[in-house]
Amino acid sequence: MPTTPRLKGIFSPVLTPFNADYSPDPDRFIRHCKWLLDQDVGLAVFGTNSEANSLTVNEKRGLLDALLEAGLPAARMMPGTGACALPDAIELTKQAVKAGCGGVLMLPPFYYKGVSDEGLFRAYAAVIDAVADERLRIYLYHIPQVSGVPIPLTLIERLLKAYPKAIAGIKDSSGDWKNTSAMLERFQPQGFDVFAGSENFLLANLRGGGAGCITATGNVNPSAIVQLYKTWQQADADAQQKKLDEQRAAFAQFPMIPAMKAAIALKTGRKDWVHVRPPLVDLDAEQQQTLAATLDRVGFVMPNAGALA
Amino acid sequence: MPTTPRLKGIFSPVLTPFNADYSPDPDRFIRHCKWLLDQDVGLAVFGTNSEANSLTVNEKRGLLDALLEAGLPAARMMPGTGACALPDAIELTKQAVKAGCGGVLMLPPFYYKGVSDEGLFRAYAAVIDAVADERLRIYLYHIPQVSGVPIPLTLIERLLKAYPKAIAGIKDSSGDWKNTSAMLERFQPQGFDVFAGSENFLLANLRGGGAGCITATGNVNPSAIVQLYKTWQQADADAQQKKLDEQRAAFAQFPMIPAMKAAIALKTGRKDWVHVRPPLVDLDAEQQQTLAATLDRVGFVMPNAGALA
Repeated sequence: MPTTPRLKGIFSPVLTPFNADYSPDPDRFIRHCKWLLDQDVGLAVFGTNSEANSLTVNEKRGLLDALLEAGLPAARMMPGTGACALPDAIELTKQAVKAGCGGVLMLPPFYYKGVSDEGLFRAYAAVIDAVADERLRIYLYHIPQVSGVPIPLTLIERLLKAYPKAIAGIKDSSGDWKNTSAMLERFQPQGFDVFAGSENFLLANLRGGGAGCITATGNVNPSAIVQLYKTWQQADADAQQKKLDEQRAAFAQFPMIPAMKAAIALKTGRKDWVHVRPPLVDLDAEQQQTLAATLDRVGFVMPNAGALA
Repeated sequence: MPTTPRLKGIFSPVLTPFNADYSPDPDRFIRHCKWLLDQDVGLAVFGTNSEANSLTVNEKRGLLDALLEAGLPAARMMPGTGACALPDAIELTKQAVKAGCGGVLMLPPFYYKGVSDEGLFRAYAAVIDAVADERLRIYLYHIPQVSGVPIPLTLIERLLKAYPKAIAGIKDSSGDWKNTSAMLERFQPQGFDVFAGSENFLLANLRGGGAGCITATGNVNPSAIVQLYKTWQQADADAQQKKLDEQRAAFAQFPMIPAMKAAIALKTGRKDWVHVRPPLVDLDAEQQQTLAATLDRVGFVMPNAGALA
């Protein structure tokens, strides 16, 4: 069976553009994905910053189909396929694997809290067994401050033992460097690829042997983040990291998803980029002005923003 | 337009029976619902204890249709229709309203945490506006320790002002009596029906003017709970409450859902009742024995269990 190369580098949880009536806009979605690929950013579509859990299964299937029909390369995609209901996770994962996606990013079922390793093991095992395809590569998604369901090291160890091929790596969005570091030490040497959950930890993660990062701000600041990935062994790496941190902070002064969407609207003139689905709320006019001023102050430029307009 | 009487009394988040392959079993589901109705317990199908978020939208639609086709009265049903994705919540709520359900129990979208009142208001408003049916009665579902998304008093106030007909009440599963008490004082006098989230607070809630309770253990201990609801002004009410608390504690020594399912399997001889969907885990043999012994000690009897066998 043919296998694609393992996923490495910078990925973005691709923002999902909505119309004013909250329906997704496949046209802007495709153009945003092409723009990201042009800058060497891979497509972690349907992540937290994609408002993926605000989309139905059918909406996600439709958007993935739209990308494939537009000719975008599945090998550069890592769609989020985790769901509270196992049959939903199985359906989305099957679609991704059949399409040839390089991997899938999989949240644990996230409604019940305080669940056991045994329960989470059974959940991942049920998906892997039902998909039953050697091409399946799962990247676990550890984002406890949002999902409420952490993925402990003990669970990773057990999953890797049972499914060494299917369990390909993790996105660690905990913001807890001690946790990322422990995974780099214990699991990266086995070929379990550790992606940092934001560019704040990109340099540290690469120095520790990690695979890259999957980061929200890849949506708006792709080239500078990719630059650090490509040149992290150069003398100016720490200075690059510092600059990336400043630029990220400009967005993080507001809720990130509406802030990034507002920035794209601002830089492209496409005002419909501001829409988010409830329970998120778009930035108000004053917040948009503050954001614009801050972005100017940190010297933020969206490269080739015209391609998105 | 005809309206059904407002929902009052004891409701149970109906356990969803699964087969060994994790598929739902409509036959046992229907019989369990009939058994509950026979004991004056209303049907809050698709609640937390129903593993509702472990079911797909289509599975929930199919199970509700199965109940309706079996002739069970929609007016006694309060299906859970909340979802992370608004179109899912809208679809399920429309189905429930068209079927004539007495109400719906609606979680807020629960993936994102720390969301604003404004965002949650927009989420509920989007469902109410899309359903656009005067028969819609929403019971808000406050269970922050599981959903991670509380429903603050300020949000209730705003929703009641904007949608005084559609916003019918709340299930308060916080376990925080101060919160329930505040809602009884501020909102119950406006006809906003406050249901306690477990029978532990049943007597206190009735004394405070509340509407009843929606409780997990209604699945296994319905008649004793209904008895207190019907006789709460009698002299033995506190003694009844104490006995109910003891019986609940017997289940709460283990995760409640697997424990209740194990108890039904035990009392009916239908061993397939033990199945739960991951991430939940069924009780092991030793836990089942401990449970059985505890149930005997507290004098727990499932009335007419033969109807479920």
